[in-house]
Amino acid sequence: MLRGISRLISPSLIKVLMEMGHGDEIVFADGNFPAASHAERLVSCDGHQISDLLEAILPLFPLDEYVSHPATLMKVVEGDTVRTPIWNHYQNLLQKYTEVVEPFDYVERFAFYERAKKAYAIVATGENALYANIILRKGIISPPLKE
Amino acid sequence: MLRGISRLISPSLIKVLMEMGHGDEIVFADGNFPAASHAERLVSCDGHQISDLLEAILPLFPLDEYVSHPATLMKVVEGDTVRTPIWNHYQNLLQKYTEVVEPFDYVERFAFYERAKKAYAIVATGENALYANIILRKGIISPPLKE
Amino acid sequence: MLRGISRLISPSLIKVLMEMGHGDEIVFADGNFPAASHAERLVSCDGHQISDLLEAILPLFPLDEYVSHPATLMKVVEGDTVRTPIWNHYQNLLQKYTEVVEPFDYVERFAFYERAKKAYAIVATGENALYANIILRKGIISPPLKE
Amino acid sequence: MLRGISRLISPSLIKVLMEMGHGDEIVFADGNFPAASHAERLVSCDGHQISDLLEAILPLFPLDEYVSHPATLMKVVEGDTVRTPIWNHYQNLLQKYTEVVEPFDYVERFAFYERAKKAYAIVATGENALYANIILRKGIISPPLKE
Amino acid sequence: MLRGISRLISPSLIKVLMEMGHGDEIVFADGNFPAASHAERLVSCDGHQISDLLEAILPLFPLDEYVSHPATLMKVVEGDTVRTPIWNHYQNLLQKYTEVVEPFDYVERFAFYERAKKAYAIVATGENALYANIILRKGIISPPLKE
Amino acid sequence: MLRGISRLISPSLIKVLMEMGHGDEIVFADGNFPAASHAERLVSCDGHQISDLLEAILPLFPLDEYVSHPATLMKVVEGDTVRTPIWNHYQNLLQKYTEVVEPFDYVERFAFYERAKKAYAIVATGENALYANIILRKGIISPPLKE
Amino acid sequence: MLRGISRLISPSLIKVLMEMGHGDEIVFADGNFPAASHAERLVSCDGHQISDLLEAILPLFPLDEYVSHPATLMKVVEGDTVRTPIWNHYQNLLQKYTEVVEPFDYVERFAFYERAKKAYAIVATGENALYANIILRKGIISPPLKE
Amino acid sequence: MLRGISRLISPSLIKVLMEMGHGDEIVFADGNFPAASHAERLVSCDGHQISDLLEAILPLFPLDEYVSHPATLMKVVEGDTVRTPIWNHYQNLLQKYTEVVEPFDYVERFAFYERAKKAYAIVATGENALYANIILRKGIISPPLKE
Amino acid sequence: MLRGISRLISPSLIKVLMEMGHGDEIVFADGNFPAASHAERLVSCDGHQISDLLEAILPLFPLDEYVSHPATLMKVVEGDTVRTPIWNHYQNLLQKYTEVVEPFDYVERFAFYERAKKAYAIVATGENALYANIILRKGIISPPLKE
Amino acid sequence: MLRGISRLISPSLIKVLMEMGHGDEIVFADGNFPAASHAERLVSCDGHQISDLLEAILPLFPLDEYVSHPATLMKVVEGDTVRTPIWNHYQNLLQKYTEVVEPFDYVERFAFYERAKKAYAIVATGENALYANIILRKGIISPPLKE
Repeated sequence: MLRGISRLISPSLIKVLMEMGHGDEIVFADGNFPAASHAERLVSCDGHQISDLLEAILPLFPLDEYVSHPATLMKVVEGDTVRTPIWNHYQNLLQKYTEVVEPFDYVERFAFYERAKKAYAIVATGENALYANIILRKGIISPPLKE
Repeated sequence: MLRGISRLISPSLIKVLMEMGHGDEIVFADGNFPAASHAERLVSCDGHQISDLLEAILPLFPLDEYVSHPATLMKVVEGDTVRTPIWNHYQNLLQKYTEVVEPFDYVERFAFYERAKKAYAIVATGENALYANIILRKGIISPPLKE
Repeated sequence: MLRGISRLISPSLIKVLMEMGHGDEIVFADGNFPAASHAERLVSCDGHQISDLLEAILPLFPLDEYVSHPATLMKVVEGDTVRTPIWNHYQNLLQKYTEVVEPFDYVERFAFYERAKKAYAIVATGENALYANIILRKGIISPPLKE
Repeated sequence: MLRGISRLISPSLIKVLMEMGHGDEIVFADGNFPAASHAERLVSCDGHQISDLLEAILPLFPLDEYVSHPATLMKVVEGDTVRTPIWNHYQNLLQKYTEVVEPFDYVERFAFYERAKKAYAIVATGENALYANIILRKGIISPPLKE
Repeated sequence: MLRGISRLISPSLIKVLMEMGHGDEIVFADGNFPAASHAERLVSCDGHQISDLLEAILPLFPLDEYVSHPATLMKVVEGDTVRTPIWNHYQNLLQKYTEVVEPFDYVERFAFYERAKKAYAIVATGENALYANIILRKGIISPPLKE
Repeated sequence: MLRGISRLISPSLIKVLMEMGHGDEIVFADGNFPAASHAERLVSCDGHQISDLLEAILPLFPLDEYVSHPATLMKVVEGDTVRTPIWNHYQNLLQKYTEVVEPFDYVERFAFYERAKKAYAIVATGENALYANIILRKGIISPPLKE
Repeated sequence: MLRGISRLISPSLIKVLMEMGHGDEIVFADGNFPAASHAERLVSCDGHQISDLLEAILPLFPLDEYVSHPATLMKVVEGDTVRTPIWNHYQNLLQKYTEVVEPFDYVERFAFYERAKKAYAIVATGENALYANIILRKGIISPPLKE
Repeated sequence: MLRGISRLISPSLIKVLMEMGHGDEIVFADGNFPAASHAERLVSCDGHQISDLLEAILPLFPLDEYVSHPATLMKVVEGDTVRTPIWNHYQNLLQKYTEVVEPFDYVERFAFYERAKKAYAIVATGENALYANIILRKGIISPPLKE
Repeated sequence: MLRGISRLISPSLIKVLMEMGHGDEIVFADGNFPAASHAERLVSCDGHQISDLLEAILPLFPLDEYVSHPATLMKVVEGDTVRTPIWNHYQNLLQKYTEVVEPFDYVERFAFYERAKKAYAIVATGENALYANIILRKGIISPPLKE
Repeated sequence: MLRGISRLISPSLIKVLMEMGHGDEIVFADGNFPAASHAERLVSCDGHQISDLLEAILPLFPLDEYVSHPATLMKVVEGDTVRTPIWNHYQNLLQKYTEVVEPFDYVERFAFYERAKKAYAIVATGENALYANIILRKGIISPPLKE
């Protein structure tokens, strides 16, 4: 543990977050997502809820403001009448850290899987809400270091 | 060994079963199946019968109810008059854990091999019944954890 | 995830629990414990509380009833007036799974570190209660399998 | 699988049996034995009974006839009134393959653990009989190959 | 070494032979064959003659009787007048273990190389006869184990 | 890079800092220190000055307040008249983060080497001031997380 | 450290520079570049500015004079009005070491990424100037060693 | 070192030469060749001249006499007026070991690179003559071992 | 294979022989020797006779002439009336390569095992003669290379 | 290769030289030295003479001026009348880089071996002069970088 960094963030997770660069993507996968079979790099956060993890990382992790939607959700399957209250929760969390009005892009289930395979890492969680998988795209850090 | 988990399940097997997610497949291969040459991940259960292993894992392992057939068998070669009593045995075992009426899909031998190559794992067994190879597709765990 | 197994238990944790045999020990270490430097095998459960993890594993993990105390706590440093309410919580959890009246042994801080080095695994958690580190010693599984 | 070799013997087990030389020891450990923590090399035969495994390997594996007792059992703890019928079963199996009248040596539990640590391999089984752990010492193969 | 298994068979070779399943192929390559550059798995039997190795493994290794020719030789290059007495020798050896009348298939040199690349293993030998490379295809073991 | 974390801190360095627990030590070694030969874990920060690195990590890294001196310097060799202005600089940096009045312990050169060997990690830097090597001992993070 | 070699150059960096041959490319990536996800070999120079690194390596590293432009920059995105003063700085540095009048080639952002993937190595830096990523192509060393 | 084998040949080089079979190729690359980036297997002979290495290996290494040209050189770039005296030197060396009249094939620079990628190994040398890279193709050893 | 080197010598064996220096020892172990459990480095020559291997390596491998006995045999166990004709055979082979009159040292069985553990390598053979294990100590190569 | 660095220095050698710090030692071992069996890290410079290597590295590698003798030779065995002209050659080379009057320490053969085991690296060369092994102890780089 380190000062000012949430204890939900493991040493492996922070290393992966820090190694990522502009445009790299990370998937927060719910408990049923086929994470191990799709991950280029697998980070275990088993048992945690995704929104707790987002709350932990968003103060550190910049979202990509060069694209229209820095986050991606899995589209509700056609005909499915399920409600997805967690999306509102995600939106509230993200809006504290980005000025993008509509932060989400939506992709179909199997396209989501293909995208997950190419992501820099997949974080396996214990999330059990419906349609809770989310992909974040990393932006840039731009403090004026040199004058 | 752990309480409530069959002693047929080795530490490696349970890890693989747990890592799998929705839609991942696992092959239970008979003693003559070319398991080592086709497996992405190979789990050794040499000497055991497949139905004993199914009986051990099905209480833990959810079948995929989002597809028509959560299990796949190798189609009897055309012209072959062999009988496959083990299929009935498998069906009885599976019916305790799924409400799918017709749990099995059937694929031709070489298509079965190709499918096995893409599976998350192959379990090498000592099964000696004919046409006993079986692929299971993992479903989801959906207890209401969060209120 | 698997049916009947808590989603707090990661694939790595269950593998380690299952590999352990009679007399092997596992340490649940709080967030400040030097886990990585002392562990023969390190299991990451960062961010979780130890009592949640105990609640998750005790239904599966038998305690050693061949020794007087199947669990070990870190003795309060002499002169320290701290209270350790978590010990009562642990005791309540353990008493559901063992008939040992006094489940705890107490060892001094540096002796505890030495013991941790020899344990089969250390589980790194995010626990933040005082004196919350605990070592469990594995017992045996003894159902009458063979007649 | 190969002709004339029991299907209980996995590729890893036969490799280990063949690599062993005169005087090397192998432990067949019951389901509760701390095999993973003590093994120089660990072979998984989870779920099998030790006597089935002995029956499978003894036709291939020569016992050491240069020592008084080519096999070692764990001594019954003093005061313990348990009976050990499996020892008779082991004796019957061994007598088919060795002319040693009294094949067993007996060592105390912790000495047995130390011996297991130095063995060439430990075979983890699902054996559930009491006092069923057994160490075999390999002998020599001496067919007259050269004239 | 083990009882009843030729001392020409190394621990690595028996492991590979046992891991192979129905339809997997193994190449016995002569001393000049580019084995290391073509092998998925390389087994060193340097210095041995291929017929000695065949004699050692055929009692254990079932040939595939589901294909017309369970063994493959390298076709004599067109125009080459060389004689290949070793083929007769191989045929005699194989006929003890298969009822296939014409056990050999013949493929052209570079097709043979491609086939070798896909084989489960290549055994590097010291064979020095001409056109002595041979590929064997593994069959099945079918004793009635279960009643 | 992450928000709020200095760009001098590499992904490997933050992982190591986070893995460390109470009482673990880390060495910041100057450019001539035999870091690679003494390090249990080596972190490359070649070319950087140690005080820049301390300034980067001290906001994150708690010093051990359970010991008299959470930092250790290499004692000036007897008879050596060198001045060590960097120590004052270090002291100023440390005093922002600890209330310990005299933060430094001093050990002789070869004892310092032995201590470095046991440290959790050595950070190789490009520091070129005299007697600039410094060992930090990690303390605890104690925010009231649970009520 | 070695005499005459800048202390900014780590052992890993010099090894990579020396292993490279005629035509191999190396990328110096700014702090936001997705270096870890694109690198065949990743060299950590976190926290350093690219121009300091170029100043350190150019005395050692020959630029390719067989191509029109031995260095490559990322083209300014169309419509972007940003200024790129660092390019002038790079040009001044390079002109000390090459007689090529116009050392730079310019490629579009995503083509730059593809090129980076094929480079021999990517050096991750802490550079924070805009459009500061640069690819260098190695030339030859041609002292008259043999007469 | 071994009797009768040049001290220029390292243990790694002889192993590679011996593992190669009929038709496998090895590249002797000059000091500027991009060896590390193109090699399937890299053998370090840094600092040595290629002709010294050829003199060392040719007594051991048979050239392929089944192809028209057992050796390959890099074609002089069109328009280039450079002279290549080293080729005569190579030819003299090779003619002691092959009866092929014109031992060399010539390929264009980038085709040469592609060929090098597929070679069994690349030997990195310190050769500084122009156009000195050479690929050798291994032939067969054919002493009458069996009567 | 290479010209002038016996085809009994595998690439691994020649590499080991060449890596050895003055005073390093190599064990040629018979088929029953516990080679895998005692070897620092294990070289497989399964199925070969030791005298064939000695005949293959002695032209290359210098014996140590700085010690009284460059070779070591296992002493016949006291009271054992076995004859050891293979020693004469070894002596004849060695005398072609050393002027030492009495090449052999004799050590007791368990001391031999300890010596084998410290040897640079153990060569596992199929030798079946009695008391055939032999340790060779490498000498120096001393051709006058420099004038 | 890099500008200003001898082509005798391989990428592995320069990395090792650069990783070494004050007081670390490196052994340049002649062709008969048991380098592979004694080296913590082995660097292959097979075929080169030690004085050529010293000439290549001494411009880069600082000798330790904090000890009486920064270099160590192997003492001539008592009674041996051999001459060691190479020592004068080494002395001339070293004197260009150190002001130490008597650069050499001398240790007995087996003490030299023990010292070599603890060295940071052993460089295997092809040196064939008598008593040519030499150990160098690294000093410090002390340019005034910071004002």
